[in-house]
Amino acid sequence: MGCIQSFRQCCDRPKNTNVRISLPAVCFVWQIAMIILFGIFIRYNEESDAHWIEHKTSNNISSNIENDFYFRYPSFQDVHVMIFVGFGFLMTFLKRYSFGAVGFNFLIAGFGLQWALLMQGWFHSLDPMDGKIKIGVESMINADFCVASCLIAYGAVLGKVSPVQLMVMTLFGVTLYAVEEYIILSLIHARDAGGSMVIHTFGAYYGLSISWMLYRPNLDQSKHRIGSVYHSDVFAMIGTLFLWMFWPSFNSAISDHGDGQHRAAINTYLSLAATVLTSIAISSLSQKTGKLDMVHIQNATLAGGVAVGTAAEFMLMPYGSLIVGFCCGIISTLGYIYITPFMEKYLKIHDTCGIHNLHAMPGVIGGIVGAITAAAASKGVYGTEGLANTFDFMGKWKDMMPTQQGGHQAAGLCVALCFGIGGGIIVGCILRLPIWGDAPDNSCFDDDIYWELPEDEENNPPTVEYNNHMRNKF
Amino acid sequence: MGCIQSFRQCCDRPKNTNVRISLPAVCFVWQIAMIILFGIFIRYNEESDAHWIEHKTSNNISSNIENDFYFRYPSFQDVHVMIFVGFGFLMTFLKRYSFGAVGFNFLIAGFGLQWALLMQGWFHSLDPMDGKIKIGVESMINADFCVASCLIAYGAVLGKVSPVQLMVMTLFGVTLYAVEEYIILSLIHARDAGGSMVIHTFGAYYGLSISWMLYRPNLDQSKHRIGSVYHSDVFAMIGTLFLWMFWPSFNSAISDHGDGQHRAAINTYLSLAATVLTSIAISSLSQKTGKLDMVHIQNATLAGGVAVGTAAEFMLMPYGSLIVGFCCGIISTLGYIYITPFMEKYLKIHDTCGIHNLHAMPGVIGGIVGAITAAAASKGVYGTEGLANTFDFMGKWKDMMPTQQGGHQAAGLCVALCFGIGGGIIVGCILRLPIWGDAPDNSCFDDDIYWELPEDEENNPPTVEYNNHMRNKF
Amino acid sequence: MGCIQSFRQCCDRPKNTNVRISLPAVCFVWQIAMIILFGIFIRYNEESDAHWIEHKTSNNISSNIENDFYFRYPSFQDVHVMIFVGFGFLMTFLKRYSFGAVGFNFLIAGFGLQWALLMQGWFHSLDPMDGKIKIGVESMINADFCVASCLIAYGAVLGKVSPVQLMVMTLFGVTLYAVEEYIILSLIHARDAGGSMVIHTFGAYYGLSISWMLYRPNLDQSKHRIGSVYHSDVFAMIGTLFLWMFWPSFNSAISDHGDGQHRAAINTYLSLAATVLTSIAISSLSQKTGKLDMVHIQNATLAGGVAVGTAAEFMLMPYGSLIVGFCCGIISTLGYIYITPFMEKYLKIHDTCGIHNLHAMPGVIGGIVGAITAAAASKGVYGTEGLANTFDFMGKWKDMMPTQQGGHQAAGLCVALCFGIGGGIIVGCILRLPIWGDAPDNSCFDDDIYWELPEDEENNPPTVEYNNHMRNKF
Repeated sequence: MGCIQSFRQCCDRPKNTNVRISLPAVCFVWQIAMIILFGIFIRYNEESDAHWIEHKTSNNISSNIENDFYFRYPSFQDVHVMIFVGFGFLMTFLKRYSFGAVGFNFLIAGFGLQWALLMQGWFHSLDPMDGKIKIGVESMINADFCVASCLIAYGAVLGKVSPVQLMVMTLFGVTLYAVEEYIILSLIHARDAGGSMVIHTFGAYYGLSISWMLYRPNLDQSKHRIGSVYHSDVFAMIGTLFLWMFWPSFNSAISDHGDGQHRAAINTYLSLAATVLTSIAISSLSQKTGKLDMVHIQNATLAGGVAVGTAAEFMLMPYGSLIVGFCCGIISTLGYIYITPFMEKYLKIHDTCGIHNLHAMPGVIGGIVGAITAAAASKGVYGTEGLANTFDFMGKWKDMMPTQQGGHQAAGLCVALCFGIGGGIIVGCILRLPIWGDAPDNSCFDDDIYWELPEDEENNPPTVEYNNHMRNKF
Repeated sequence: MGCIQSFRQCCDRPKNTNVRISLPAVCFVWQIAMIILFGIFIRYNEESDAHWIEHKTSNNISSNIENDFYFRYPSFQDVHVMIFVGFGFLMTFLKRYSFGAVGFNFLIAGFGLQWALLMQGWFHSLDPMDGKIKIGVESMINADFCVASCLIAYGAVLGKVSPVQLMVMTLFGVTLYAVEEYIILSLIHARDAGGSMVIHTFGAYYGLSISWMLYRPNLDQSKHRIGSVYHSDVFAMIGTLFLWMFWPSFNSAISDHGDGQHRAAINTYLSLAATVLTSIAISSLSQKTGKLDMVHIQNATLAGGVAVGTAAEFMLMPYGSLIVGFCCGIISTLGYIYITPFMEKYLKIHDTCGIHNLHAMPGVIGGIVGAITAAAASKGVYGTEGLANTFDFMGKWKDMMPTQQGGHQAAGLCVALCFGIGGGIIVGCILRLPIWGDAPDNSCFDDDIYWELPEDEENNPPTVEYNNHMRNKF
Repeated sequence: MGCIQSFRQCCDRPKNTNVRISLPAVCFVWQIAMIILFGIFIRYNEESDAHWIEHKTSNNISSNIENDFYFRYPSFQDVHVMIFVGFGFLMTFLKRYSFGAVGFNFLIAGFGLQWALLMQGWFHSLDPMDGKIKIGVESMINADFCVASCLIAYGAVLGKVSPVQLMVMTLFGVTLYAVEEYIILSLIHARDAGGSMVIHTFGAYYGLSISWMLYRPNLDQSKHRIGSVYHSDVFAMIGTLFLWMFWPSFNSAISDHGDGQHRAAINTYLSLAATVLTSIAISSLSQKTGKLDMVHIQNATLAGGVAVGTAAEFMLMPYGSLIVGFCCGIISTLGYIYITPFMEKYLKIHDTCGIHNLHAMPGVIGGIVGAITAAAASKGVYGTEGLANTFDFMGKWKDMMPTQQGGHQAAGLCVALCFGIGGGIIVGCILRLPIWGDAPDNSCFDDDIYWELPEDEENNPPTVEYNNHMRNKF
């Protein structure tokens, strides 16, 4: 008890937001570590190595177009846009935290993807012949996916943490992700093409648990900055739309060549379309005069993409996708209206971007939909070969039944939840240490803490520390 | 006469902009209808169904890369960006209607694409074996195309209609589109890869006719809001550029595999490049001191893409594409300078985004260019097989001559015009009914009617109804 | 001496910024010239011509998917986005020059790509059978690449030149580019997939030399406009991110089918990730309190993509890419802090966007890295066939050794430097003539000179010349 007391006191010392030593130190040390580890472990796989031309001959591959690059690279680029522009701009809605939203998103994604290549490589792509990790286009997509879970978590703590905390959060987040992904996909043999469980459920609960651990009782000292201005809402719509448009690529990026990718794209496309209508309907219903709220349009419209993630490559049927989207639009919007304020008031979880509504609930729904769809699969609907192919009933899992697969899917969802909540609590404890340079309660959601701001007649009364922000001056 | 009089009186009752009942009702009813109809009618086609693996074997398809997904999905994603970011942001130029531009664009596109899948499916992809519509990536592209015509129509009435009116307009627009598309492409056997006639001519005249029916004589009460601010013009450039850049994908998305897609992309690329130069030239000429007008740069630079739509897959020749772009840049910019004000003053057609200049005139030009290019086609230029392939002179149309095809193209253009104008007048009448919640004349072009606006020190003097727009409050 | 004196006097006459005659004249004359030259010279290549179907049969090509379109079109679209949105928005950071940044970028790219198709065609794709240039998707990518070098040059003179000067600069820039590209790639047989030398080194020194020739001693009369506002920095991040995300497509767009494209994408992806971390580290270190500077985030984070350009398709190894990115992030950020102000003060080179740090230094580093990597290539690493394939040791170059290739790479770098500096000085002289309508020293970086600006309560006190900027008024 005394221990916790002194920990708490230690954590509540006055804040020092100067990150001039810690941020560069973390960046340099980690980047150098990456170079060393990449030097030891990471090599090109056979499709990106110069020996491909010989590999092609010896494996009787008729054409360069059979290189996995051509199956997945367009989807990879779409996913890449979602990670950097989608997540980055979605968080620019705050009136004075756009630099932090898009800039720190950039920083942690850039770091996270390198660490993800290593962590995921150790679990999935280690070549037993030479002990090296072999990477290709699918590795890059998976690294981006992994980073996505950390960016989701960032949404919960947006504006309340320092870049150093974000780096630490990402380091642990990627590590936890790789482990839970290995357990869910390889050990439990659950399928999760679009990552409803692996990415969204894990990432969201990881972020929410951290936010809970970092709860600031006096945050209303900064509440005048928790809001948007007209143009910051338009910027956020850039993020929303790029996420919305490219979600079919996200859910289909690593599913099976051929019908798997094709079907995943269609299901996601339909689910998202339905979500738009129900989000807007509930948003309008929730206001006295039927006005729409930009927060709902920016976020809840995406819930259908999250929820259809696991089942996207299954024979969910077009109407099934619409139903999933229909429900999630309603649930997510209601979440923004009722659950987010409830969580803040009673559970002491402050969720800046409302990731509980956009990722946590739809992610769990997605896991459940996936389990049901898998359990209901039949040879009649999939065909004998199609069933084995879609659920990867091969090798060791040759004799698995769809109903069993449903159970495994549900088990996967539990693992994602446990890792998210458990990991988040532990990492949250670490991040409470008073050494990370986070902002005091009255300076949250303010770019001025970590960014040189332009002198800005309109928004920003000239601050004491005058920034002329010229490109060409000493 | 008395009937018209009383209709008019009925329509001119005071406006009530509360859409709290009507908007959610329309969204829910239509979305539920979609789910039911999708359940009855829509299934995956053989390339997106899990039976693909068996289909591949039985049809002797050597590789998954032969799945249509890999031919068309990258183009689909580009088209998708044009629909949601392109059209959405192009309309954000108004100083206080950016939410409505990008948000309602999102709403009607999300609804429209579902209805389009059904309508187009009934006409084009109904499987006679089981009475189901089979969808794949090409259906998604076609649904996006169909929605594009309704978004074009939205441009004419931007800021003057309610979201409920937009939903009704889209319902009828998609229906009319599917019928005219069936007549033009299947019955008349006209070719229209990029939709100059089917999408742009139809959509633009549909929107203009509706705008004519909804003419507001007292609109100058809102004229201080018909203008841009500096940053809203920059936002609009995002829309312009994504439309401009991805137009080659738009025009090539559903053309023939191989040389058809390749040629359509090249022709569009060149035509658009030429349009930029002539738009800028005319814009500069039109001002006393040679200054450029952002309206022209945002819109007229795109006219070349519209006008090359029909002929993009033909052997238009690179210089032919440049000539088309050259002329359209001039005509479209002159349209903004002379025709739009003329139409407003004398024809009582108020065209907020100037779609007459960007879509209607270039669309008609595109139809004519297509007819001429088709009529001039020869075996020398196309090769015997190439000619049959490009113009689909197969089956029932085996003995068709290029000159005949030219006539059919011209007939297609007339059908598009008739459907656009006729349909627009009828739908416009329906939309005049005083039940749709549109804004009074002095509140047009104002997001405040349908959106919760952030308190915004800079642009927006705090309104009586104070919106604190916090994400986390009840 | 007297001659130089009178030239200088002639150049220093009072400025007239009216471009109402010159700009339209240049646009029309050049566009008409393009149409004529395209009519004489440019035709579709065999993959985009309607004879493809016959070509396929006679060349025993099994499927339409073997058309180069499907190998390169997705990358082309990404490159296209980089040219128009990437470069365009990257330059919108100035508080009152966003229209000029994105608008003139649009103009010169639209013109430049046409001229590039011709110039590059004469050197590379002239069909000896009929004397025609045959174009396809690779030609479009190359034209976009060529234009990129001119847009880089624009970065140095942003805000200080007229659109007419930019057109002249582009005309000469494209011409010089095509010649140096021919010398470097064809005569010297250097490899340069991502254009570190051909595009970035050439373009940057071309722009810097022009900026040197156009040096304005009294530019501090405009220095209050050399800075950003909050939202203009967010707009610039759109440019940054689209450049950053799509750079893997840029570097892989024209490399070899199969492993070449695959490897180039991986190397670029990794290099860029490392750059983000070191740029941010140095940026934070450079400020007293560890705050980050948006200028560095917007620009220096991209340096890794430039520097890995030449070696992207080589077996640089994943850790090699990280090292390149690591170093360039540091060097580029230090450049912004120390070298740009030094160059302005002592070398009389004013570099608005800091292209010396983003393109010139990383480009030279890229050339050197390419030379070293090529010289160190071995059959062990590449495989016998892979080595010949990667370095194109075929035909006339069959017996070339990797060490020799290293020398050729270095020679290529020198050629790029010479063409950039030499060409820039000559073109700069031409642009000093007082006939081009450039702005006086006290009106630089101001859109008001060349654009009709919206009346803008917030940023822009109503000017004498009142612009109501309505779309619908005479």
